[in-house]
Amino acid sequence: MKLPGQKDFEGSDAHENVCSEELDTGLGPGPDGPSVTDIGESPVSKDPLLFIQLNELLGWPQALEWRETGRWLLFEEKLDIGAGRWSGPHVPILTLPSLQKLRSLLAEGIVLLDCQAQSLLELVEQVVSGESLSPELRGQLQALLLQRPQHHIQTTGIKSCRGSNTFRKASCDEDTPLKHQNPLRQKLPPGAEAAAVLAGELGFLEQPLGAFIRLQNPVVLEPLTEVILPSRFFCLLLGPPTLGRSYHEMGRAAAVLLSDPQFQWSVRRASNLHDLLAALDAFLQEVTALPPGRWDWTARIPPPKCLPSQHKRLPSKLQEVTSLPRQSAALAEDKHYHGPHTPIPELQRTGSVSQLCSTFTWPQSQTPSLLGVFWEMPLKVPRDYGLDYLPFRLWVGIWVATFCLVLVATEASLLVRYFTRFTEEGFCALISLIFIYDAVGKMLNLIRAYPIQRPGSPAYGCFCQYPGTGGNRSEWTSTKLKDTEDVLSHPGLVNASFLPPSECIQQGGHPRGPSCHTVPDIAFFSLLLFFTSFLCATALRHVKNSRLFPSVVRKVFSDFSSVLAILLGCSLDAFLGLATPKLLVPTEFKPTLPGRGWLVSPFGANPWWLSVAAALPALLLSILVFMDQQITAVILNRAEYRLQKGAGFHLDLFCVAALLLFTSVLGLPWYVSATVISLAHMDSLRRESKACVPGEVPNFLGIREQRLTGLVVFILTGVSIFLAPVLKLIPMPVLYGIFLYMGVAALSSIQFMKRVQLLLMPRKHQPDMLLLRHVPLSRVHLFTGIQLACLGLLWVIKSTPAAIVFPLMLLGLVAVRKALEWVFSPQELLWLDELMPEEEKSTPDHRPEPEHLFSGNDSENSELMYQPKAPEINISVN
Amino acid sequence: MKLPGQKDFEGSDAHENVCSEELDTGLGPGPDGPSVTDIGESPVSKDPLLFIQLNELLGWPQALEWRETGRWLLFEEKLDIGAGRWSGPHVPILTLPSLQKLRSLLAEGIVLLDCQAQSLLELVEQVVSGESLSPELRGQLQALLLQRPQHHIQTTGIKSCRGSNTFRKASCDEDTPLKHQNPLRQKLPPGAEAAAVLAGELGFLEQPLGAFIRLQNPVVLEPLTEVILPSRFFCLLLGPPTLGRSYHEMGRAAAVLLSDPQFQWSVRRASNLHDLLAALDAFLQEVTALPPGRWDWTARIPPPKCLPSQHKRLPSKLQEVTSLPRQSAALAEDKHYHGPHTPIPELQRTGSVSQLCSTFTWPQSQTPSLLGVFWEMPLKVPRDYGLDYLPFRLWVGIWVATFCLVLVATEASLLVRYFTRFTEEGFCALISLIFIYDAVGKMLNLIRAYPIQRPGSPAYGCFCQYPGTGGNRSEWTSTKLKDTEDVLSHPGLVNASFLPPSECIQQGGHPRGPSCHTVPDIAFFSLLLFFTSFLCATALRHVKNSRLFPSVVRKVFSDFSSVLAILLGCSLDAFLGLATPKLLVPTEFKPTLPGRGWLVSPFGANPWWLSVAAALPALLLSILVFMDQQITAVILNRAEYRLQKGAGFHLDLFCVAALLLFTSVLGLPWYVSATVISLAHMDSLRRESKACVPGEVPNFLGIREQRLTGLVVFILTGVSIFLAPVLKLIPMPVLYGIFLYMGVAALSSIQFMKRVQLLLMPRKHQPDMLLLRHVPLSRVHLFTGIQLACLGLLWVIKSTPAAIVFPLMLLGLVAVRKALEWVFSPQELLWLDELMPEEEKSTPDHRPEPEHLFSGNDSENSELMYQPKAPEINISVN
Repeated sequence: MKLPGQKDFEGSDAHENVCSEELDTGLGPGPDGPSVTDIGESPVSKDPLLFIQLNELLGWPQALEWRETGRWLLFEEKLDIGAGRWSGPHVPILTLPSLQKLRSLLAEGIVLLDCQAQSLLELVEQVVSGESLSPELRGQLQALLLQRPQHHIQTTGIKSCRGSNTFRKASCDEDTPLKHQNPLRQKLPPGAEAAAVLAGELGFLEQPLGAFIRLQNPVVLEPLTEVILPSRFFCLLLGPPTLGRSYHEMGRAAAVLLSDPQFQWSVRRASNLHDLLAALDAFLQEVTALPPGRWDWTARIPPPKCLPSQHKRLPSKLQEVTSLPRQSAALAEDKHYHGPHTPIPELQRTGSVSQLCSTFTWPQSQTPSLLGVFWEMPLKVPRDYGLDYLPFRLWVGIWVATFCLVLVATEASLLVRYFTRFTEEGFCALISLIFIYDAVGKMLNLIRAYPIQRPGSPAYGCFCQYPGTGGNRSEWTSTKLKDTEDVLSHPGLVNASFLPPSECIQQGGHPRGPSCHTVPDIAFFSLLLFFTSFLCATALRHVKNSRLFPSVVRKVFSDFSSVLAILLGCSLDAFLGLATPKLLVPTEFKPTLPGRGWLVSPFGANPWWLSVAAALPALLLSILVFMDQQITAVILNRAEYRLQKGAGFHLDLFCVAALLLFTSVLGLPWYVSATVISLAHMDSLRRESKACVPGEVPNFLGIREQRLTGLVVFILTGVSIFLAPVLKLIPMPVLYGIFLYMGVAALSSIQFMKRVQLLLMPRKHQPDMLLLRHVPLSRVHLFTGIQLACLGLLWVIKSTPAAIVFPLMLLGLVAVRKALEWVFSPQELLWLDELMPEEEKSTPDHRPEPEHLFSGNDSENSELMYQPKAPEINISVN
Repeated sequence: MKLPGQKDFEGSDAHENVCSEELDTGLGPGPDGPSVTDIGESPVSKDPLLFIQLNELLGWPQALEWRETGRWLLFEEKLDIGAGRWSGPHVPILTLPSLQKLRSLLAEGIVLLDCQAQSLLELVEQVVSGESLSPELRGQLQALLLQRPQHHIQTTGIKSCRGSNTFRKASCDEDTPLKHQNPLRQKLPPGAEAAAVLAGELGFLEQPLGAFIRLQNPVVLEPLTEVILPSRFFCLLLGPPTLGRSYHEMGRAAAVLLSDPQFQWSVRRASNLHDLLAALDAFLQEVTALPPGRWDWTARIPPPKCLPSQHKRLPSKLQEVTSLPRQSAALAEDKHYHGPHTPIPELQRTGSVSQLCSTFTWPQSQTPSLLGVFWEMPLKVPRDYGLDYLPFRLWVGIWVATFCLVLVATEASLLVRYFTRFTEEGFCALISLIFIYDAVGKMLNLIRAYPIQRPGSPAYGCFCQYPGTGGNRSEWTSTKLKDTEDVLSHPGLVNASFLPPSECIQQGGHPRGPSCHTVPDIAFFSLLLFFTSFLCATALRHVKNSRLFPSVVRKVFSDFSSVLAILLGCSLDAFLGLATPKLLVPTEFKPTLPGRGWLVSPFGANPWWLSVAAALPALLLSILVFMDQQITAVILNRAEYRLQKGAGFHLDLFCVAALLLFTSVLGLPWYVSATVISLAHMDSLRRESKACVPGEVPNFLGIREQRLTGLVVFILTGVSIFLAPVLKLIPMPVLYGIFLYMGVAALSSIQFMKRVQLLLMPRKHQPDMLLLRHVPLSRVHLFTGIQLACLGLLWVIKSTPAAIVFPLMLLGLVAVRKALEWVFSPQELLWLDELMPEEEKSTPDHRPEPEHLFSGNDSENSELMYQPKAPEINISVN
């Protein structure tokens, strides 16, 4: 499952560009790229989105007909006439001569602004009458312009016209009644308008005829556009036949101009021809020019995933007027889209604990922590000395809860501001590595438990010996082994048969022989299951990026990749029916330890001072609880998720403390926030815009903030105790495979891993990451190396008897990050990580400007907009 | 291994564009994309390639210095100053205002054409003196211009300056003596020239100062450019500080202009300012314009894999002059780059067999045919009736050789012209499917031979019984079982022990029990080996497209993917030491059948008429031999391989006939051309250009046509009989895994499979294939469906007793293809397949023009250039 703002590293091979990196930052037009709201409409006014259609006059001289050959919303779609289909949406490419010819044609042609026409007929009459044309030419033209164009209604993959018979040409002629059901119509936002551009070559014209009409009130120009929408703009470009398709290109140029929100803004407000031409010239000034001969002009550029802001394209006058409020708005927005180091309102020191309980937050999911592989460790010590485990644990729990309450009371959550990406990545990488290490380790243990029978290993022999060595042999045989044919057929066996060990015991016999307790085939079959579930889950997750199958199918495959992989593994296991080790599920609802009640006695057989001594391990555990809880909370409360309800750092920790106390008293497993599950839950609650025009990426709207799903999830988790008969069918190797998958997926999702890969990547193959444009490679490698060293040190500490200080060391990541300020410049840290709160104070304008020398350049400045300030999502698993 | 002209379907996800498809056609600038020869130089003159360097004046007012901030060869490389590294080569993006400002600056500035300066000093003097500057300004300027710029020498990944210490900033100051070893220098073609553009803002200038100098004789302007090359062009753009980096952009515009071969061509021949400005205007007219706001201007467009021809960019006058000879040359070239249906000289009917042996060709590799799984079939029939196999086979061989000679004599190879891609794909898909089917089938057989012990299966028991049931038991024990501890320890065993079966037999005992003959763990371990070798080979093959590791490492991994996978499988097997089935290798050089000599007796025990009856199966086999040989030959002789030596269709078949006779007489396996191996051999002999400038794709130069490698390969194959001790270590499952890999790789490389995938692909996710731009999707699906049906029919025939007619059916593919002309229009077949010879005669201009209505458009026409006429390479395995 992909979390918001996260990108697949695998998919970003040759085409990893700025935009895909920008996606991760939560800045720019939004975490999910362009949308109608972002780029389709002008940034200032709420001008409607325009659907622009190019109708081209074809077939001169024999069979004149209008035919729709192009259409524009955000991007261009071209009719591939030979194939009878719309091209995919792509960035339109123009030639300068076509724009220049269009300009001169409009300059000499008819420009009617605020035309009063109420219908196509009136409009055509005005266009035709305005010119010094001969009467018969006027009639011919009028008839021609009123002729119904041939539309090609078939949108990209949504609905094919007249049913979706694959083996039929999906083109519709003008008579189709289905035009009203044009699926494109449903995808347009409310208030969208249409615009028609008519272009072509007409032999009987002696000179070009250009017209640009702006209607005062938008009118439905019925047969002109395939989508029935009111139109305000109408452009006519006719002329005598020329070399090349110059009128086609001019028509495209006019359509592209109208699809530009800035041009549209200007033209809506133009009062004369001069304004119109000025808008065209302004457009020309902003055009991006690619040199000839270095560019394949038949290539269709797919829509970029994100686009630059349209703000700076405002007319200069307006820019001045709006710049002040907009700037402050942008600043406010920027504050809203802060990284974790900018003061989140909830992270302001309130100075009072009394406000605590009035905060209303959206509680995060609470499930067993991943760091449980650590905190059982200090608890083991008293057990090794023969002391009572549960009472000691109870006291540790009481102390941890107390410390957590102290942390809440002292508003220690403010420390969260020092958790930069450096810390988050260390934490996440550690969790991922533990997943991987555990999965592989447990798999190896399993193989050791079911040894492989090599040719040199003792022997295969095993037989079943009857209860008595003599006497009642035949009786035993006749009563218990009626269906076993091979009894007595082997002269070397006395009072014995080849019953399988389990049956033998069941029937009262004794299995004898060196291989009675080895089960063949299990080790390799378990390995097969392990790899199958891992590879299957990995492959299914990537189905999302495949081109095959409809989106719904791909989404199901991808979202349920783990579940499907487990199902596949279980099916394989059930099909072969081998005795693989299965998941152990308790069948009864009761405390596991026999003889204890539901409540833990506070002292048991322990001396009283142990309850005081428990404060020491509790101190260390408190750090773990705090880090685990708060890093999760920081990630969940990132600006890019656009949460409406406030963050509850203090309250969350308070809840954790209360739960710790509760579970300690009952002797249940301790609960803290589980990063992985909380993030997956959050991801499943994303809201995205649906009405997407061709080329538009679905727009992230926010999170469905509610408590229902969380409640249901944990009710269902509780109900799962009744699913024991089903759950015990799951082979352990399948689960280990899924753990491996989760670890690998989580590890590969963090930027840290991308930088580790850079270490192995020749310079010329490195992707065009913004980071690499601004920080010397050696510095990037140094930063990565330090992270690797920290991770290695943490791993070593975790694996040695020094593990007791592990929580302190984890907190030490923050100190290391602080120390990095002596090694790296603030600019470098800005790109490599993010700034810690202190730097904010020292740099007056909150964001130091790298490379002052080059600050004048637009593109340099714009790159700064994309700086990876908000950290990436680190964990990505189901 | 990737064969020339073949592309990976896996790698062509979101970015599959026209160019990558064009690569497959063998048309356009060459099968491997742009090269210096193709695009770097002007199409007409042999103007040298220009290395253009932009030196920018930075640090006003405090610390003025010149710094190299950009360089151009085919594409732009930009200095990312913050990171201190060159960007990757990318398509330069300009703004129109910068071009316009440059134009006006040059129009008002100093333009010296054919300047006589012999050094930088002289040049600077001329520039400074030409303007009405005050003397002190003149002095200041002169000093400034002679100042040594700061270069940044570090090319993309080849060599880092001053050794390649990763943790050091790889930037060099101006004093470095290594400048002479600039690695870029070595990569430039001979005759390359440099050009310098100097741009920047200078506060003490009151008005802009522009200069464009063309030296009469190129001069090494020493400190100006990082590469020491003679320069002919020098451009200076200075002015008072402005808003934005407008002089930087103007400098870039000047550099891009100079990097354009057409502009360079014009400017070299310009005689005055007017010519210079005209060349700039011509450039402007050809610029590709991307609308603002629909394009992320910070994105760097990677160099396209192929570029359009520069021919049409010639000045119109020159175009007229050169068009006639060039057109005919192009036509000749086109004839040379024909598909197989255009008359290859060797496929012209000569009318005489006598010329046969004088043809000197490059013989293709001859190895056992893949179609051997068929032609043993008719030979089995007499064996089933108890007749002598080898004599019958001898007669079949004699007849096949005779028929082949008849085919040679009648020049039947002319039929090859009817083998279009349709036939080739059918043939290739069939071979691939046989590989896959056999690999999986043999693996399943192996599992059946080593059954898995399920819990319900009889029992695990096996023991070793001693020779006598009584008496000498202790003696046997004492002599033979000294080290077996468990003898007699089990009271149920009489005269028996748990010796493993093999040892038991060795020591004279009898293994008794139901599981003595089952070997545990082998089945699953074999499956593991099978999947491991398959996945490993597949993954290693894709390492080539990875960004990690240097090219050499990736090439080794990719080229030896199969070998490495086999080695891995063998190591795993040897490490565990299980008794997996291994490759059977004869240890002695002798006929396998005991008792027969080296020569096959002509009749043996068979009746005489059987030698006549052998003609019937021989007729069918001849068809197979013919198809197998000729399809291979057609693929090998494709125009895209640019073979210098002629094709030998007739001689090859003659050789095959002779070899058939020879092997039949000796009773050896028959030999025909092996498509897969021959193609892999060809691929290993590719010659590619090495001196590639940044962004340039290596240029395919041709095949190393020689006989040495072929000879050595087969000598080594012969020598492999001495490798038996090594070869017998290879487990069979590993080989089956490699077979599966070969089948899957070959299958996925044909266009047919891409079209099959289209069946499963929603319309909007379909890649932008040229095919889909020109043929309705339903027609594409119909064509694919017919191919699928043919394949299914062939497979069914192959699997039933009707298999005897299989060769006829294979030939039937050609007939089906012929019949398709009634279903599809020539235009559709042109895109879907290619035309058969007949159509050529019926369409006068050899290439029917689709969509006449739109023929005026440039881009439509240019797309036609890319039509997939020459078929793709079908088989791609090691």
